[in-house]
Order: sequence, then C-alpha cells, then structure tokens
Amino acid sequence: MGIFELHKTDNNTSARAGLLTAAHGKIETPVFMPVGTQATVKALSPEELEEAGAQIILGNTYHLYLRPGCDIIGQFDGLHRFMHWDRPILTDSGGFQVFSLAKLRTLTEEGYAFQSHIDGSRHLLTPEKSIEVQDCLDSDIIMCLDQCLEHPATREQAEAALALTTRWAWRCKAHWQERTDCRNSLFGIVQGGMFTDLRARSAREISEIGFPGYAIGGLSVGEPKALMMEMAAHTLPLLPENKPRYIMGVGTPEDLVELVALGADMFDCVMPTRNARNGQLFTQRGNINISNARFREDKLPPDPNCQCYTCRHYSLAYLRHLYMAREILAYRLNTIHNIHYYVNLAKEMRAAIVENRFDLFKKAFYAKRQD
Amino acid sequence: MGIFELHKTDNNTSARAGLLTAAHGKIETPVFMPVGTQATVKALSPEELEEAGAQIILGNTYHLYLRPGCDIIGQFDGLHRFMHWDRPILTDSGGFQVFSLAKLRTLTEEGYAFQSHIDGSRHLLTPEKSIEVQDCLDSDIIMCLDQCLEHPATREQAEAALALTTRWAWRCKAHWQERTDCRNSLFGIVQGGMFTDLRARSAREISEIGFPGYAIGGLSVGEPKALMMEMAAHTLPLLPENKPRYIMGVGTPEDLVELVALGADMFDCVMPTRNARNGQLFTQRGNINISNARFREDKLPPDPNCQCYTCRHYSLAYLRHLYMAREILAYRLNTIHNIHYYVNLAKEMRAAIVENRFDLFKKAFYAKRQD
Repeated sequence: MGIFELHKTDNNTSARAGLLTAAHGKIETPVFMPVGTQATVKALSPEELEEAGAQIILGNTYHLYLRPGCDIIGQFDGLHRFMHWDRPILTDSGGFQVFSLAKLRTLTEEGYAFQSHIDGSRHLLTPEKSIEVQDCLDSDIIMCLDQCLEHPATREQAEAALALTTRWAWRCKAHWQERTDCRNSLFGIVQGGMFTDLRARSAREISEIGFPGYAIGGLSVGEPKALMMEMAAHTLPLLPENKPRYIMGVGTPEDLVELVALGADMFDCVMPTRNARNGQLFTQRGNINISNARFREDKLPPDPNCQCYTCRHYSLAYLRHLYMAREILAYRLNTIHNIHYYVNLAKEMRAAIVENRFDLFKKAFYAKRQD
Repeated sequence: MGIFELHKTDNNTSARAGLLTAAHGKIETPVFMPVGTQATVKALSPEELEEAGAQIILGNTYHLYLRPGCDIIGQFDGLHRFMHWDRPILTDSGGFQVFSLAKLRTLTEEGYAFQSHIDGSRHLLTPEKSIEVQDCLDSDIIMCLDQCLEHPATREQAEAALALTTRWAWRCKAHWQERTDCRNSLFGIVQGGMFTDLRARSAREISEIGFPGYAIGGLSVGEPKALMMEMAAHTLPLLPENKPRYIMGVGTPEDLVELVALGADMFDCVMPTRNARNGQLFTQRGNINISNARFREDKLPPDPNCQCYTCRHYSLAYLRHLYMAREILAYRLNTIHNIHYYVNLAKEMRAAIVENRFDLFKKAFYAKRQD
C-alpha cells in the first residue's frame, strides 16, 4: 500500500496536488493531519473529525506504547477499532517524545533507553522496536526512528545525528520488510539541523534507501521562521518527486501555505487543537482570542463564512461565555472550528492547485488573514 | 402554557404517566431532566442530549444571572437560542445556589442579599427578581423563590422557612401574573424540613395559592434515605392530582423508581453528569467505576444492552484508557452514557405504568441492579 499519484503541479509555484492510497482509505494532498496523541484528538469524537473533513489523523507512538500499551491495542487489532476511527492513521516513531518528554534518556547506537514520564518504568526504543509498535497499532503510515536535535545544535552534532538517522533508517526498512507484511507505508525522515549541505546529504542518503514517502524532521524546533523556510526550500526539491513529502510538526496557516508552495504535501501540528483549548480561533480574517471582552455580546459566529458545526450554531458571545466558565463544551466547540479551518485550508489549496490558480489563492489568503 | 394531562395511574402503586405541554414542546412524564447549570449540560452538545432522549433540561438561574447575565441572554431572546437547544427548559429560582455558593448572604423578608462567588459583586435576589430573571431566560418552567434550610434544622427554623416560602410564593405568583405574559409555567415549592405536619401545612398553603405545577424542595440535603422517602411519601398525596409533581435535586436510580411509585413525575440531579466526570457509570446491572483495573482489557461496552452512542462504539478498555489519561473525550462519553441511562430509566418506567406493570418493572429493576 501507499501508492502516491501526483495529479497536478502548479505552473507558478512548486505546489502539488496528489492522491495517496493507504490501507484504510485515500488521502487527497495537500493534507492536514489532526494530532490524536493518546488515541483521541483531544475533545473530539471521530464523527466530528469526519464532519470537519479530516482524512487522516496522527497518533503518538511514545504515548500509546506506554499507555494503554500494545498488549491492549493489539487485542483490538490496532488503533482503528480501539478508538472507533476507520480512516487512515499515521504514527510517529516515538523518538521525538522520548527526546522531549521522557526522563533519563540515553542515546546509543542501539536506540533510546528512557524512563516513562508516567510511572518511571524503563524502556528501550530501538528502530526495530518502533517498527513493531507501529505495526501493532496498525497505522497506515509509519515513521522511521530518527535522532532529534536540540536547537541550536553545532554542525558536529547535526552531522552525527544525520548519520545515525541514516543507519537507523536502514534498520527500520529492513525490519519493516522482514517482520511486517508491508501493508503499511514506511516513511523515511530527513534530518541535518540548520545546515543546508547536511540537509542535502540526509535527503540523498534517505532517498537512496528508498521509501514509500519522505518526511522532513527537525523543523519548527525554535529556529527563526525564515531559517525554517530556508531549510524546507532547500530540502523539498531534493526529495523524489513521485513520493509524498511530509513536513513534521508544522505549523501556522501561513506556514502551511508557504510550504505547499515549496512542494510539501502533508502536515501535522498541535496548533489547532492546543490553541483551541487556550481560546484561540483561526479564521480567514485572522486569529481571534475568544476571551476578548469585545465578543461579550457578539451574536455572530467566529467566521460567518465557515461551514463548521460551531459556526453554524453558536455565537461568539456563547463561545466566550463557555470559555470564561471553563466549560468542557468550550474546548470542544473551539477545537471543531480550528480543525475544520486547517483541514479546509488544505482542501482549498488543493482545489487552487488543480485549477492552476495557487498563486492567486495565496495572495487572497494573505489579503484576508491580514485584514 | 403548562397543560398537564394525566394519562394513566398504575393500579398497584401511585405511579403516574402524564404529558406536560410546555412552550417549547411536550414532555412525557415521568421525566428526568439533565442539569445544564451554565447554559450547557457539562461536556455534551444539544444534539447529544437529543440523541440520548432528553426532553427537557434544567438551567441554574443563579449562575446564569451572574454569568453571562440577563443583558446578554436577553439579546438572544432567552436561553434556547443562546445555547442552541430548542426543547423545553426548566430553571430553578436561584435560591438554592445563593444558599450553597454565594458569599455573605443575608436573608430578610425582602429576599436574599448576597455577594457573587465569582467576583464578589453585591446582589439582591427577591421573589420578583427571580421571576424576572427566569422570564428573561424564557424558561418553559420557572420556579418560585423559596427558603432553603440546612440539615438538620429545628422545628422552629423549618416553620419559619415554610412561612416565608409561602409569603414569597404569593409574591412570585403575583409578579408572574402582572409582569410576564404567563407563557411559561410557574411551579410552587413545598418546604417544611423533616417534619411531616409542616410538610402537610406547606403543601396545603402552596396548593391554595394555585400553580401549574408543584415541587418538593429541601429533600436530599443530607438526611437519611429513609427519612427522605418518608417525607416524600407523606407530601406527594397532598399535592393536586391533576398537576405535575417535581422532586428537586434527587437522586439515585433507586430513588427515582421509589419516588415514581409514590407518585412523582419530574426529577433533576447532577448525579449522572458529575459522577460521569468522576468515572462512575450507571448500568442496568449496577454502577461501575471505569478506573477499575478489571476493565483494562475489556472489549465489551459498559452495558451490552444499552443503545447509547458510547455503548454502541466504545469498549470498557478504551473508556478506561481515556479516563486514566484524563482525556476530555472520557468525560463526554461517560456523560452520554449516564444521561442516556437516566433518561431511559424514566422512559421505561412510563412504558411500564402505561401497560400497568410498574410493580413488575420495579422488581426486575432491583433484581438486575443488585445482580
């Protein structure tokens, strides 16, 4: 599985419209993947995700491996039935969360030794183990274990990390081929820190191994926006044209538009869900904070042009009331809107690419967002 | 509005099946009313309440008066449009929350002077003010302001409270007739503490004033269960037969069954919603705590015979996982189930009454619950 068809490349930018066929369904790209860390996209039901147009969601291997664990999810034949979601799922390798959440982690050639942030239990996450856990979760798209870097990192650190990431990518591919039936797609990950030549080397090495798809990792880790865009602009053209390209953990609506223009196909980010729970709503006319007193009596929805459940039925005044009262429904209605916004943004970009008007779309997008 | 038709009285008990016509729709009784304190039944959408079969919900006047306030809700022509719920709503008078939540409250003949628990602002809740606020909320059923008592209370305290409650009931009715168009039903409330003769006196006095419906207040305030049942058994037959009878703030599933047998028609309680958020699920076979380790790998739903959204799609193992991970979806799925359980219990009781088999229903109910 994991066949990628490139339907259209924009004439004036590098934007692409594609179709990815995964084990649990087809995914039109560009696509935004809502983050469902612990077998749930926080506050939403699967039906609400579907209504918002989500084609694929992301699960976090580190979290699911620790709780509830593969022994449980395996009894449901994977994450889909466990969480009542039958569209595609992508899981990360677990490496980034070991790096950012786990206690007492030690990195060796073998993998990451770490202690659970939940109960302090000791674990070893190797490239092989990551593949096995993701296979047990039965994700449609699984990711190679890579070495993440702090930002800023020295050239020496970045070089060592990319080299280890390449060696681990070989091990991941071998284990995927030997130990799973390859029904799920394995994506390679490009590292290389903030050094263009190292990004190029990593892109070449990972491409040479050969994967059904490619991701760019290690972006949006604290570097300036211009530097992130420079790295992406430099790396994206070096990836195989006929495979999907996934920018991990990015970003704002503006980031998505810029990266699609550079040829990226897939995105995930906690921003729409996390910011929803902090009262920030994304709209075509810019972002708003629902706690703002100017919404106290506002009978309009967050975005009168938005077709999401929240905008169809609720006013800014009601959403502000729920948020100020810390009601659970506040987090839910805000999240529904933000997920719809991100998913729909990707959908609109795709339509613009197919109709060869992506540059016009981009101009109109900025004109409205900066309104 | 507020026409009540008594469809059937059970041959072997005092259980009644009725139909209450309110401004926003018809309500089959016995009925359980989910509590939506702050213009939301915690964690649920209006669509989920409808799917669970809720015919009417309760709003808390004290909370809504303080936040967002009548100036806001009035701009939406009431609570229905503000919160996107178009079935009937009952609001309480605000008295109980002033009594239990507000700071520095002082009781006079005029009303309750108090400070907001949110911002310390000073307010005066009179019988007239309570009617006006509830009229502004446009509730289908509004309640008289009454004087609540601590438990235990002396006979002297209970006597004074019932006398004041009667004087306030006169003022509420007068204000309701003079200042509203009476499109909403006003219910009188019986007090009298834990003294049967005072309960009888209160029932007589409140009935003499004449209301579209009657409530029994001041139960389930910390007294032993047997004492609560004794008060209800004593008071219910003293209320007009052709009007709905509402037991306020009660109770467990067993309480509902017992009180219906004694002739009660309407109930509200935070138990199904609050306990859901604490991991307790009500089922036909008894209550379960979802955090229990025995559910770790359990692929069954909470109740295999239950038709609620939660039981149709999710396992105990998944619900336990969500709850242990403190995911918002946990509170939501648990609440959906518990509301469905309570609403459906009332529905099943009604069917049993109509078919003249309420005593059999009651036996079967206990046999299963104590399984």
